[in-house]
Amino acid sequence: MKVGILGGGEVGRSLGRGFAAHGHDVMISSRDPDKPELKEWRREAGARGAVGTYAQAAKHGEVLVLCPMGAAAEATIDAAGPRNFDGKVVIDVTNPLDFSGGAPGLFVGTTDSLGERIQRTLPKAKVVKCFNIVNNRTMIHPGMKEGLPDMLICGNDDGAKRQVAGFLKELGWGEPVDVGGIDGARWLEALTALWVRAATAIGSWSIAFKVLRS
Amino acid sequence: MKVGILGGGEVGRSLGRGFAAHGHDVMISSRDPDKPELKEWRREAGARGAVGTYAQAAKHGEVLVLCPMGAAAEATIDAAGPRNFDGKVVIDVTNPLDFSGGAPGLFVGTTDSLGERIQRTLPKAKVVKCFNIVNNRTMIHPGMKEGLPDMLICGNDDGAKRQVAGFLKELGWGEPVDVGGIDGARWLEALTALWVRAATAIGSWSIAFKVLRS
Repeated sequence: MKVGILGGGEVGRSLGRGFAAHGHDVMISSRDPDKPELKEWRREAGARGAVGTYAQAAKHGEVLVLCPMGAAAEATIDAAGPRNFDGKVVIDVTNPLDFSGGAPGLFVGTTDSLGERIQRTLPKAKVVKCFNIVNNRTMIHPGMKEGLPDMLICGNDDGAKRQVAGFLKELGWGEPVDVGGIDGARWLEALTALWVRAATAIGSWSIAFKVLRS
Repeated sequence: MKVGILGGGEVGRSLGRGFAAHGHDVMISSRDPDKPELKEWRREAGARGAVGTYAQAAKHGEVLVLCPMGAAAEATIDAAGPRNFDGKVVIDVTNPLDFSGGAPGLFVGTTDSLGERIQRTLPKAKVVKCFNIVNNRTMIHPGMKEGLPDMLICGNDDGAKRQVAGFLKELGWGEPVDVGGIDGARWLEALTALWVRAATAIGSWSIAFKVLRS
């Protein structure tokens, strides 16, 4: 199949290599199709690989892979020509990451969380977000046939998090993944919305996430 | 240790059972401490278990577990007495779930996504959110020493999602978890913000999520 990759960064090049290696005719594209990384990419990809402008790749592809920086997504579509997307599958790899301050946020929203509200309401307490990402049936001795899921926690006080880690160990969990200050609750809370959808898709409330490591 | 559980629903009872079974002195609480589920809970928990009002449990606990419905979190804190939280570890299990329409949202925000914006910008395209939740090095043949991670996808067009599932199979993935319409991108995008924090905590960009099943 003809695949158009809109975005010549690491993501686009990785996906482009993968599609080309599996027999697809891939055109990768960039604002700057002449950049050295894309020349090298083309040499590696061989006869299955081409490089072009956004518009050329959007026309080429029966399937389009959209993978520019999130903040450039709409400008990339403009440059590619919105009509070139009509009726096609668009694999959207973008993230609306907002790098304006520290760890990335989402520029489409999510600038607060209940964890943070609770910490603000209780300024002298040591709030640790924990357990919110699993069903109550998975909170204690959570081992599953596919292994032990991970608990992800966050909070502003390291001592409090160590204490919670001790509780987790007692209750059958491994060492939690500490995702930082209480503002991490924005994402632990968002994970639950995803969990609900995944559970619905799978048809079981007894699911939980594991963080696999290479 | 003395543990106060603020919330007498399924979550509170599960966690309360777990803490009591591991030797902690647990007081569970509710707006209605006399409800039958809590009488039963107390019988099961034995000498390590007590039932009280929010304020009693908040005073009892050296560690507090906050697990009411998200929308009731602040009212629960009010009833428990904010000063009873001062200096204590508060395990925040809440989710700000907004059940006002269909699948739950987060009432603190996240009412749009880049996936949806892109689908609105390209009304005739079949946008499928995919690959955004892993690093580019994990996109192709993603098997890790701990197993095969899961790809989660969403989009409005079932045929487009089947096609993407076919690509994923070619590229070394298993059957993706289909989390529904393109509005699922709100949570797949949010997962990336969490992924960044987890990767930072673990010290590796080569991590990915697996959905474990019981």
